[in-house]
This record gives sequence, structure tokens and C-alpha cells, in this order.
Amino acid sequence: MTVQPSPSRPGRPVLLGQNQYGKAENRVVRITRDGDTHHIKDLNVSVALSGDMDDVHHCGSNANVLPTDTTKNTVYAFAKEHGIASAEQFGIHLARHFVTSQEPIHRARIRVEEYSWERIEHHGRGAHSFVRANQETRLAQITYDGTSWEVVSGLKDLVVMNSTDSEFHGFVKDKYTTLPEAHDRILATQVSARWRFNWTDDAQQAPDWETSYAETRRHMLEAFAETYSLSLQQTLYEMGARIVEHRDEIDEVRFSLPNKHHFLVDLEPFGLKNDNEVYFAADRPYGLIEATVLREGRPQLIPADLTNL
Amino acid sequence: MTVQPSPSRPGRPVLLGQNQYGKAENRVVRITRDGDTHHIKDLNVSVALSGDMDDVHHCGSNANVLPTDTTKNTVYAFAKEHGIASAEQFGIHLARHFVTSQEPIHRARIRVEEYSWERIEHHGRGAHSFVRANQETRLAQITYDGTSWEVVSGLKDLVVMNSTDSEFHGFVKDKYTTLPEAHDRILATQVSARWRFNWTDDAQQAPDWETSYAETRRHMLEAFAETYSLSLQQTLYEMGARIVEHRDEIDEVRFSLPNKHHFLVDLEPFGLKNDNEVYFAADRPYGLIEATVLREGRPQLIPADLTNL
Amino acid sequence: MTVQPSPSRPGRPVLLGQNQYGKAENRVVRITRDGDTHHIKDLNVSVALSGDMDDVHHCGSNANVLPTDTTKNTVYAFAKEHGIASAEQFGIHLARHFVTSQEPIHRARIRVEEYSWERIEHHGRGAHSFVRANQETRLAQITYDGTSWEVVSGLKDLVVMNSTDSEFHGFVKDKYTTLPEAHDRILATQVSARWRFNWTDDAQQAPDWETSYAETRRHMLEAFAETYSLSLQQTLYEMGARIVEHRDEIDEVRFSLPNKHHFLVDLEPFGLKNDNEVYFAADRPYGLIEATVLREGRPQLIPADLTNL
Amino acid sequence: MTVQPSPSRPGRPVLLGQNQYGKAENRVVRITRDGDTHHIKDLNVSVALSGDMDDVHHCGSNANVLPTDTTKNTVYAFAKEHGIASAEQFGIHLARHFVTSQEPIHRARIRVEEYSWERIEHHGRGAHSFVRANQETRLAQITYDGTSWEVVSGLKDLVVMNSTDSEFHGFVKDKYTTLPEAHDRILATQVSARWRFNWTDDAQQAPDWETSYAETRRHMLEAFAETYSLSLQQTLYEMGARIVEHRDEIDEVRFSLPNKHHFLVDLEPFGLKNDNEVYFAADRPYGLIEATVLREGRPQLIPADLTNL
Repeated sequence: MTVQPSPSRPGRPVLLGQNQYGKAENRVVRITRDGDTHHIKDLNVSVALSGDMDDVHHCGSNANVLPTDTTKNTVYAFAKEHGIASAEQFGIHLARHFVTSQEPIHRARIRVEEYSWERIEHHGRGAHSFVRANQETRLAQITYDGTSWEVVSGLKDLVVMNSTDSEFHGFVKDKYTTLPEAHDRILATQVSARWRFNWTDDAQQAPDWETSYAETRRHMLEAFAETYSLSLQQTLYEMGARIVEHRDEIDEVRFSLPNKHHFLVDLEPFGLKNDNEVYFAADRPYGLIEATVLREGRPQLIPADLTNL
Repeated sequence: MTVQPSPSRPGRPVLLGQNQYGKAENRVVRITRDGDTHHIKDLNVSVALSGDMDDVHHCGSNANVLPTDTTKNTVYAFAKEHGIASAEQFGIHLARHFVTSQEPIHRARIRVEEYSWERIEHHGRGAHSFVRANQETRLAQITYDGTSWEVVSGLKDLVVMNSTDSEFHGFVKDKYTTLPEAHDRILATQVSARWRFNWTDDAQQAPDWETSYAETRRHMLEAFAETYSLSLQQTLYEMGARIVEHRDEIDEVRFSLPNKHHFLVDLEPFGLKNDNEVYFAADRPYGLIEATVLREGRPQLIPADLTNL
Repeated sequence: MTVQPSPSRPGRPVLLGQNQYGKAENRVVRITRDGDTHHIKDLNVSVALSGDMDDVHHCGSNANVLPTDTTKNTVYAFAKEHGIASAEQFGIHLARHFVTSQEPIHRARIRVEEYSWERIEHHGRGAHSFVRANQETRLAQITYDGTSWEVVSGLKDLVVMNSTDSEFHGFVKDKYTTLPEAHDRILATQVSARWRFNWTDDAQQAPDWETSYAETRRHMLEAFAETYSLSLQQTLYEMGARIVEHRDEIDEVRFSLPNKHHFLVDLEPFGLKNDNEVYFAADRPYGLIEATVLREGRPQLIPADLTNL
Repeated sequence: MTVQPSPSRPGRPVLLGQNQYGKAENRVVRITRDGDTHHIKDLNVSVALSGDMDDVHHCGSNANVLPTDTTKNTVYAFAKEHGIASAEQFGIHLARHFVTSQEPIHRARIRVEEYSWERIEHHGRGAHSFVRANQETRLAQITYDGTSWEVVSGLKDLVVMNSTDSEFHGFVKDKYTTLPEAHDRILATQVSARWRFNWTDDAQQAPDWETSYAETRRHMLEAFAETYSLSLQQTLYEMGARIVEHRDEIDEVRFSLPNKHHFLVDLEPFGLKNDNEVYFAADRPYGLIEATVLREGRPQLIPADLTNL
């Protein structure tokens, strides 16, 4: 937020600061037909534009305002004109268009949610039947200021669990501490992650966005599964480090990991021994562990708060 | 609802009708350890009990009331004592217990949501790492009145799409009709389904609940994919008929199928032709198609409204 | 559900049972302008039609099918033609129209959610500024079969709390009971209620739907507040009885009342005494208390399960 | 985010960046008894702590980690020890405690959601019955680094509508623009707002947090109602300016305002004229207007993105 606040109108000690506008949550489904075999991309695209927007705030003049409705139309038109090779590439087309075609627009930020579909196996003809798959939603954010690009990809709602190989002890005790130490517990979380690419310039070779996403997701899952955990922080760090070490195109990863507590149920009142078999899956409250892991020498740019809590 | 309303208290022209109570949404996770290989069942269990409950309504006497907290404890204790072979079998254990152990309880209904997990493939030791899979939630409802059983299984939030092989025309036109006929459209829905088993008696051989669920889900998906559709009603009927024809243990299926509209975007204002490639995925309103399909000669017992809209 | 299943197609042991279709969740806002003073009705209207619908299920013939899109158009056209005096009256117009204008339609059911708005007090001219008010949503369901009417109104998400004057003791103890008795507890619930009117015939004087709703809501709140409670069942019964006793137009009330547990926090480990001051508001699990209260001699017609859990 | 990334472990080109942890969503209800009259505060409190946390990320050592469970206990203990005069004051107690009592903790951030309750009017004794009121949720965020305070308050889900006195025209038209100009439209939004206080030092007189919230909410509503709007940006600016001009304790306001579109329904196909009476309330997509309004000479510190879309 290096935007300079705009001069106030005469007589008011009030300035306009950072602002952006656009159409949010444009739901676009793009079908590509290869004979009887269809391919599908299912996106939720949000546009946010910034630029010379003082007048519309100060007096309601829309002379510099491309309507949000137009930004919606552009999303659908571009789905036809450019296709959707990936969420990232689609966002790059859109962001470039808004900044280069509209003089008052100095920055465009495109956010995309992508929903995944698998083919339904069946005995009929053709391949154009699909079932929604996975719990998680893929994310992409593309920002362009006319000069350089920032691409941050990610996912949310990837729910994972280790049913053992997790401990928690040796922690600080103060007068409000009642938690017993745990030497074998369930570790479960709902991963929200964002990772920033070091591709910033059209002159660079762009990453293969589809491969990068699949591999990054795989590294996160493997790191989660393969880490014997003494704290969720340690697991988080390993997930991030694994990505930085294996994916040269990524410089920074931010995680927000709720500790989805599974409490061992006390069955002793019923004469039963609970040998780490029966758990109560709690909703609230939950531990919330958030951190950035980044490549040595690279800046920290992803904002800290991925959730509002 | 053949329950007879209870006599009113003196002087009040008011009767008590059908009533039930219990603890809802008990979240239980059951881990079964086979050495380094763990198995997981993840359920949300709701208990509803009915019986001699006039006094507690009329004057607050809890003499016949087993606390809802106790029904929660029982869920966790039974997860240890009986394990969770399937949602249905677990519900049968619980329902039988409440009806046979508590004289004032005449009927027990257990509802279960089950969440599915897949193993994470990784290079570490053991097999105790999981990722939540699928969009849909498996459902089971077990009702016992001390004599006979009713088991209704199902699922919700199974989202499916055919990107072609769907038409809609030849419909009634009245003065409020503006819809054009469609000869190639996307057909998409979010399946909510319940199916009733003809197993009602302990003397009968119970179905293999796990196999039955997997096969019923498969038949639904195949019928959806293999049906060239002239209306969502036709597709619904084929999905139900396929189940009745292939699964002898099931007598009745109820569907609630929102028609998740995907509207072809008009790109002509931008000089583009939309050859069934770019769609707007709408939220509301949506068509809602609901029907029961049942085996000849068998009663219709599943209630009509699976949703509240 | 007294619908007779339809004959199967040759060779299939499969029947079509109860079915209905229509457009769900039509969001209509109706502004009535009285000079500078505007009035607002904000509804979510769902249409469900039943009748001669065998062919569309069996072979996809839409010859009897009024499109769901047409039912949507009708909602908006009727908002203009008839206005929206109340959710109930609006539903009556719609249901009558579908059954009387379309020969294949034998039954129409209209469900309405209504959102409440209050005026914003301000110093400007006119009275056309509003703020959404209340947590609860008003509900109405109107069913017409060409002969008689069933009107069920209600509400959901009305959250109430008594911070004292609630006890729970004298309950059954079995081997799974650990709950201590409570002699002063918080009683809180999120009321879901439906009430059925005894107006069934056009020849009868219809109730004043707006007054009836306001008074019924008031009686529920007063009964909740004024009842010293020994169990949530007792409070529920008083809420229903109060309505039946005071509102002659209503014959039956159904409640679904989650017991929103507020657990007294144990502060003794920190050397503090918790004198019914500090509570943990729990999410899940929760007690769920459901019952019908009805006028002597009147039938019980509202279905038992208002929620799916 | 001026946090310096931590040195990597030997041999890994990976650094730890900004990180924080704590217990989120502690639901606390505090009853204050004044004889038969009770007062209620209903909060959802989230704790996030930062400091010397390298070891727990790098190797799982919890030697500097106060458990999230302890932070939860502290919330409940402080509700007893300090009471809850306001969300802001309660957060100040908590943040000060964590930073001053734990050497490794350098910064504490407390986030609070507050739910509002109104008294139920009734004829019984006492005043301890409540009903949840309003759609919006009050928010507070308190951050302390051992030296200075940052308090940001706000609200979300305040839904407002002007049914006239809104226009939108004179905007940019490009090749993707199809929107007609509007000279009388509904303007509706769901306000999400955050405002930052200029109280930063214990030596300053703290604002009256309760009065400040009530007045700020009132100014926002009045500004929304009293502004003849040529764009939602103009309305947003007036809402912010009104606060800055009237509330000396506030230096900066950030808004995220979805333009909740209400589309005039075309009734001409049915031979009806829609004279700004019947609207379709759309869900998605929606315009999203976001901006900061601030006092001249004061810094812009509230992050730009209040939502994730």
C-alpha cells in the first residue's frame, strides 16, 4: 500500500486512500470440445481495478470508471477469445487488458477460484460427463501495474490428518496452563496456502502453471505425511521448505493452518479404555498457526492474514 | 406420524403431538490400528428418541428423560465397544440400545453423516496419513421401534455435469413463458438422494452396507452419464430405476435435484460466436426437481421434502 | 403423501411416486411508492408443482410441463399485478393461478422466506432508506389442490436466551450418564417454528396474515421469557400452548429447538470462583428438542422434521 | 510486516518470515447480575501471538510456546477477573497480559466479534431474557507490541438499501460495454468497515469505546441515507468522511462494499409496465467497491483486503 492519499476537497480534512473496484465472483464455465471428448474449466473470477479514481469518490463523476458490468463482460469474452489454459494465464490476459486499454487504470488485480472436476467412468458414448472432486479450491491472484507481474497461487480447504506421529510437550506453563502434555495425538488441519512466483516480467519464461500447481500440492501433502511432528509449526515449516526447495519458480509460501483438534474421549466413567481409538472432532475454538516460509534473499510480500479471524 | 396426541392438562384445549429429542451432531472419529496401517471412520451422529414424554412437556418432570448428554456419551462408548463397521451398522447398535434399555423410550432414530478420507501417498513409513476426499457427504438414517427396522441411506452434495446430450423443448407455453427451446445444453445438478432398504427384521440377512453404498453411488453416476436427457425429470427417473433394477436390497429412492443452470453467454455484442463454449454458472433461482422412484408393490415411505425450499 | 404411484413402463418393475417440480429461490423485491415514502417487501419464493407428470419422467416428453422458468416469470409478474400484501396472500395468488390455469397441474405449493427491513432514521428528505433487521427469517408455505388450502407460516433463526430461571435435574441415570444436575443454567435456543392455520376454504374469512405473524412471534417470545423452565421441552410446550390459546386462527404448531449449550467455565484451576458469570457457548453437539403442540380435536399435519439432522 | 526473516538452518536456503499463533474463536458469554436485571456480553475472541518462535518452526521445540489452550483459558479467566466493559477494553487487557507476562512474546493481536442482544419485553419478573438483534456483527482488533497500541474497530454484514436517489451514468464505454445508463436505481450494499483509532499510548485518554461504536454506526447509516448517489464510490466516500469529520478519535476508515445488484425485471413480455416496482435481487456477480478514507496528515495502516475475493 504505497498509494499516496489524494488531496481532499476544499474545506474537508479528509483524504482518499487506497481504493479498488470491479466485478467480483464472475462464475464462468468453459467447455472445450475435442470431438466427443470435452474438457472443462470452472472458475470464479474477481476483478479489482485501481487508478485515477478521485473524482468518482469526491463527486460521483464516472468519467474514468469502466463499469463493473463491463469487467464482467470482458471475463466472458476473454474465455472465448483466449480460452482458459490455466487460471493464472487467464488472469494474466485479463489484467494486461485492463491496464493497457484504459488510461485511467494503473493496476489490475484478478483473483480466481477454480473448482476441480473428474470424469465419470461409464459405458455410454463420449467423454462429457463429470463429477466435482476434492474438498479444496484452487486459487490464483494476478496483479499487474503495467510494468511488472505478481502471481500468487494457492488453495484453501485442503483437509488433512495424521492419526499418529504427532506429539506436543515441553511448552511454557503459566498460571493459566492446564493442558497435559501429549505424546501421541491426531494432527489435523485445513490447509489455506498461498505461494508467490518469481516470474515478474514478460521477458522471463513463464512457469507451467498447471504442473506447478499439481507438484506444489503434492509436496505439501507429502511433507505433511512424512513429518514426525512435535508441533504444528514444525509441520508448517516443513511443508513450506519442501516447496521452496523443490519448486524453483516459487519464492515465498504463506500458510494459515487451523489446528483441528481431535480430543481423546474419556471413556473411563464407562469402564472402557480409550487406547487412541475414539476422538471427539471439535469445531471451536481451534489453534491457528500462521507463517511465511521464503527463499533466502527474497522479499516477503504475501499479506499476513489470509483469514479474518 | 401415527402418534396419538396426548391428553391435555385440565383446562387447556391443547394437546401434545409427535415429539422427539436427543443430542444432535456428535462428531466422532474412530481410528482402527492395524500395526502401522490405520483405518478411519469420521461420522456426525444425531440421536432422536420418542416415547412416554408427556410429563416433561406438561410440567417439566424429567423422570422419563435420559439426558441428551447421556446419548452423546453412548455414541462415544459404542464407538469403542462395537467399533464402526459402517454408518448403518453403528446406528443399528445405538437404536437398539436406546429402545431396549429404556422402558419409556419407544422409538429411536439415528442419523449419520459420514465424511470420506483417502490415503495420502508418500515416501515415509506407515499408512496413517489422510486427505478429505469428494464433495459429497454419505448419509444414513436408522429407525427402530422395538419390532422392526427402517434403514434409509443416501448422500448429498454430489455435483455432476453433462456438458452435452441434454435438450429441453416441447414444453407448455402460457402467457408468462419466454424460455426458448434448447437442443444442446449443459445439464448439471447437485444430487441429494435417499434410498430405503427392504431389510426390516433382525431375522433377515442384513445387506453389506458398505458395498451397497458404493454400488448405488456408481449406478447413479452411470445413469446420469449414460442418459441422453430430454428433461431433468427423465434423468432422475433413470437414476432411480437403475438402482431399483440393480440393487435388490433397495425398494425406494427419493431424489431432490436442483437444476444448476449454466446459461450460454451472449457474446454477439462483442462480435464473437459462442458455440456452446462459454457459460455463466448461475446460483439462484434454480429449477428443483423432486421425485420418488420405487419398486412395484412396495410402499412409499421416504418423506417428500429433503430440503426446506 | 397419498399420491398413488404411477404404472411402470412395460418390462420395468419400477413405479414413479410422489413428485414435484418448479423454480426455487426466486428473489423478488417489491417497492411500493407512496410519494417520497417507500414501502418494501423482500421475498425468496419457491414454487413446487405436481400433477400429470408421468410422461416427462418415463420418456422425457415435456407436453405437460410448464417450464420452471415460466414459474419464475409468474412470480415477478404477479408482484406487479397483485402486489405483495403479505407472503401468505402472495402465495395464495400464485398457487391458485398454477392449479386453475394449467390442467395437468393438480397441486401447487409455494414456499416463501421473508427478510425484514427497518427504516433508517436520518435528516434527509424522503423515507426510502432501509437497514436489514432481526436475525430471524419469516416463512410461509401455501398449498392448494384446487379445492382446499393449507397455509403454514413460521420462522427460523430466532435466537433467544434466558440467563437464569432454568434448571435441569431429576432425569434418568444409566451407565453412560455423567451429567451433573443443574439448578441455575442458561437456557438458549434458535427457534425454528411452523404453525398451521385453520383457514382452508375461500368461503372462510382469511386471517390478517401480517397481524397474525406479529402476534404469534410476540407470544412465543413472551412465553419463552415468562416460563420458569425445568426442561426445554416444558418451555417448548408453553410456547406452543400460548399460541394455540391466543390465536384462534392457528390449530397446530411445530417446533425444532436446538439446546444451544452454554457451559459454565471451570475457573477453579486459576483460583477464581465462577458464580454463573462466565460461560463457553458451544457449537456442537447440541440437544435437539422437537414437538408438535395442537388444538384439541384438530389433526396433526405439519411434518416432523424441520431440519435434516 | 517489517518482521525480519529468521536465519535458516544450516544447508537450507529457506527462511522463516512473519508468523503468529494462538487460539481462535473462543466463544465467551459474560453475564453481569444486577439483582434480577442481567446484562450480557457475547464475544468470539481470537488470539494471535508473535515473538521468538524460530525453534518451534525449525525443530519443534516448544520451549518458547505458551500453548494455544492456555490463551483460551486466559480469555475465560479474564472475563471473570476484569469483566467485559467493551470488546476493545477486553482486548487491551488480554494483549497487555501476553506481551508483558511472556518474555518470548513480542506482539499480541486480539480479534473480537461481538453479537448484539436486545431484551425481550414481557410480563414476568426480572430482566434476564434476550433475543439476538441486528444482522451485523461488531468487530474489534487490538494490537500491542509492548510500546504502542493499535485499535481497529468495525462491523460486517450491515445490509442497507436506498430504494431511490441513486443513478449511474457518464461512465467509460469500451467494446465490451453493454450496460445502459441508469437514472433511478436501487442502491444496496452489505457494509464491511474497519476504523482505526488515534489512541496509541496508555498515557492518552482512551475513547469511550461503546459510545464511539454507536455513533460511528449512526453516522454511517445517516450518510448512506442522506447521500444522493451518482456511484457507490461517492456514497462510500461520504460515509467515511462523515466519520472522520464527526469522530475525532478516528483517523482512518476502510470499507468493502459489495454492490448488491437489484435488477429491474422486464415485464413487457407480459404486457406490464415496471415502474421501478419489481426487482430481482441478484447474488453473484456483484460490484465490489473498496476504499480507505482518512484524516489529513495521518497514515494509512488498515490493510486493503477485508475479504478474500
